[in-house]
Amino acid sequence: MSRKWLIKNGAFAVLDTNKPVIHGYMLIEGDKITYVGEERPEGVEGAETFDGKGLLFLPGLINTHGHAAMSLLRGYGDDLALQVWLQEKMWPMEAKFTSEDVYWGTALSALEMLKGGTTTFLDMYDHMDQVGKVVEESGMRAVLTRGVIGLCPPEVQQQKLDEAVAFARDWNGKADGRITTMISPHSPYTCPPDYIEKLVQAAHDLNLPLHTHMSETRAEVQQNVDDYGVRPVQHLLNLGVFSRPTLLAHAVHLTDEEIEVLAAHKVTVSHNPGSNLKLASGIARVPELLKAGVVVSLGTDGPASNNNLDMFEEIRLAALIHKGVSGDPTAVPAREALLMGTDYGAKSLFLDNTGRLAVGMKADFIAVNTEQAHFLPRTDYVSHAVYSAGPKDVEHVWVDGKQVVRNGECLTLDEERVRFEAQSAFEGLLSR
Amino acid sequence: MSRKWLIKNGAFAVLDTNKPVIHGYMLIEGDKITYVGEERPEGVEGAETFDGKGLLFLPGLINTHGHAAMSLLRGYGDDLALQVWLQEKMWPMEAKFTSEDVYWGTALSALEMLKGGTTTFLDMYDHMDQVGKVVEESGMRAVLTRGVIGLCPPEVQQQKLDEAVAFARDWNGKADGRITTMISPHSPYTCPPDYIEKLVQAAHDLNLPLHTHMSETRAEVQQNVDDYGVRPVQHLLNLGVFSRPTLLAHAVHLTDEEIEVLAAHKVTVSHNPGSNLKLASGIARVPELLKAGVVVSLGTDGPASNNNLDMFEEIRLAALIHKGVSGDPTAVPAREALLMGTDYGAKSLFLDNTGRLAVGMKADFIAVNTEQAHFLPRTDYVSHAVYSAGPKDVEHVWVDGKQVVRNGECLTLDEERVRFEAQSAFEGLLSR
Repeated sequence: MSRKWLIKNGAFAVLDTNKPVIHGYMLIEGDKITYVGEERPEGVEGAETFDGKGLLFLPGLINTHGHAAMSLLRGYGDDLALQVWLQEKMWPMEAKFTSEDVYWGTALSALEMLKGGTTTFLDMYDHMDQVGKVVEESGMRAVLTRGVIGLCPPEVQQQKLDEAVAFARDWNGKADGRITTMISPHSPYTCPPDYIEKLVQAAHDLNLPLHTHMSETRAEVQQNVDDYGVRPVQHLLNLGVFSRPTLLAHAVHLTDEEIEVLAAHKVTVSHNPGSNLKLASGIARVPELLKAGVVVSLGTDGPASNNNLDMFEEIRLAALIHKGVSGDPTAVPAREALLMGTDYGAKSLFLDNTGRLAVGMKADFIAVNTEQAHFLPRTDYVSHAVYSAGPKDVEHVWVDGKQVVRNGECLTLDEERVRFEAQSAFEGLLSR
Repeated sequence: MSRKWLIKNGAFAVLDTNKPVIHGYMLIEGDKITYVGEERPEGVEGAETFDGKGLLFLPGLINTHGHAAMSLLRGYGDDLALQVWLQEKMWPMEAKFTSEDVYWGTALSALEMLKGGTTTFLDMYDHMDQVGKVVEESGMRAVLTRGVIGLCPPEVQQQKLDEAVAFARDWNGKADGRITTMISPHSPYTCPPDYIEKLVQAAHDLNLPLHTHMSETRAEVQQNVDDYGVRPVQHLLNLGVFSRPTLLAHAVHLTDEEIEVLAAHKVTVSHNPGSNLKLASGIARVPELLKAGVVVSLGTDGPASNNNLDMFEEIRLAALIHKGVSGDPTAVPAREALLMGTDYGAKSLFLDNTGRLAVGMKADFIAVNTEQAHFLPRTDYVSHAVYSAGPKDVEHVWVDGKQVVRNGECLTLDEERVRFEAQSAFEGLLSR
């Protein structure tokens, strides 16, 4: 029989239009939420209770684009022109990454994400079995995908494709269903068209979504036009990418027509404001995308270009920068920004079982300590969550109904060991 | 004899160009730093020692523009057009503020600021004696100024001027010298020219700097041109404002010529990125100001338009948004952003005794816990402080050589009482 427990005295961010926060009860049975409401539910006599006094319960935050292992390069190169940063800092170090490095880098990131209230993350990287292992151990939910770059001889292309397919097939549904997978051509500018077509076919064969970087920089859009005569959206459309459910990372530089195409094909977008600002890529047209009906979620991108995995910061940036840039203080209101970090996150990953505090959803949620100066006065908890909260306000985290963070301590990963090994891994990279 | 104590095993952000962080020792005697260096200093046999292992010591953060008591209106109105927000939300409530409300609102803010690593703040508001009282009790350093609006009959103008002058005269040097004062016409659009001239004269008489809001919005600049035939910088120059040391809040909308005038007159600027974004005021020309030699510091503005008092966020925003908007990833590098939040903060407030970890400076500094995932690997502590740190990473805070936060707990204010009274004050405002 699955465990049944009742949270009482809580404030729950259900994020409904007319009543975004309700004060009352939430019932969890096994891995699912079975009740949320103001009245005490019926038939809970035997259930354990958890006192939610002073806590704001939010859906677990969902980070829809990243490369977790790159935490090993946090602070290794900052404030540099993009090509200098990539060619002189990132690529030479990444070329040295072993599977063990990926394991410890990902574990370091998982620790930061979990303690900061992120319950689900997408990861696109290499050595993905190591990432899968961290997800299994940490108790997180994740969408994993081997990102492939096709600028290599055909036999290497084929080998990478086989690897991506094998990973996607073997790991889909693993970790009690917490892991799902996607197929990922790295980007239109790093994958030749015929290679992208092969990856689309693989996604069809496996019945999986696609994920790719697109239109992160102006230069990349121009290169696409120079090479293929069309902008990236038309290019990907021509290659059949949007015949599959597709999540695009960045999508900073878009025309009105491109936004229409994305909306028509139900393509979803992972907006990465922190990374886009830091790398000076530009400001994505988020208000226009949302208005067109595109599902826009939030991602941190890799921790070497952010440099943290704080989803509260991405939510706040999404709420702030589009106001400042558009001159419209009503652009991306607080509730919309919080939805981008939760419900829209799930939708953009094509997951229908997480992202909301609602009956039938997986019990992926977090409790934030509101008994602090920056949560006062008790005016509007959605506003406070978006404009005032930070990762260390998270007291407790549950994924799939299991507690993984208690009183700010991670229960699933050995924090001291992870920190030690991650530092050692970085020193190893430096010395090789 | 003043207390003498030595921090060992610390990482100290001295922020020198060639060596921004040194690992070693810092000696504090009474209220001053008397040594920072890699070698153990001579003649410290009798000194107490403090083990700085795992801690990054930063100069206390300096918040150069705000209205602390407005924390009572945090979350009371968000994501609204500026005039709706002011006229329907802020002004009706502020009109009801009693001196007791100002006391508890300011105390709530002082608590948040101190625990988040801010050691010095500027406050422009009303009932300033209450703000002074909070500064005395909290142990913070502050620059206080009664902001006056001159859109009223001459006798009310005179009364406000007398009040501003009396406050500035009586409180300058109070709290063991931790309080200094300024004279503040609220803004060119809320003070008639002859009233501004009287305030300039008062500043001359008292030998104090001036502080005012300027060019926060485009509309306000246009109004200045309509009313006086010149843009705000020329207007204030004509009125003699820049004959005094002057700190401008916001200065978002500036021409190249205006930037030159500010640089020539050594006018300093408080950049408030969070508030400017949230109120959709625009993006200040910070890279151009810095390049012209203007001292640009950082402020949160009031907590009702931010909605927090987290200076780490302002530092990070200053480092991020100007890259994203200019397209130049080298704009406002990490070290420059951290200087804006510390050393340039002191300089913009015309304080020459705080803002740096250096011999002869007041012992205003904070210790950040680096034994956490988001501070790894140990690549670049300046980068980590700017791009990864948050207010709750602050373990300890000292002002004037006295510890005011220990292990994240405020030693000077009764946190539980402050939170209770601030909530009550807000409820009182709602019910009146």
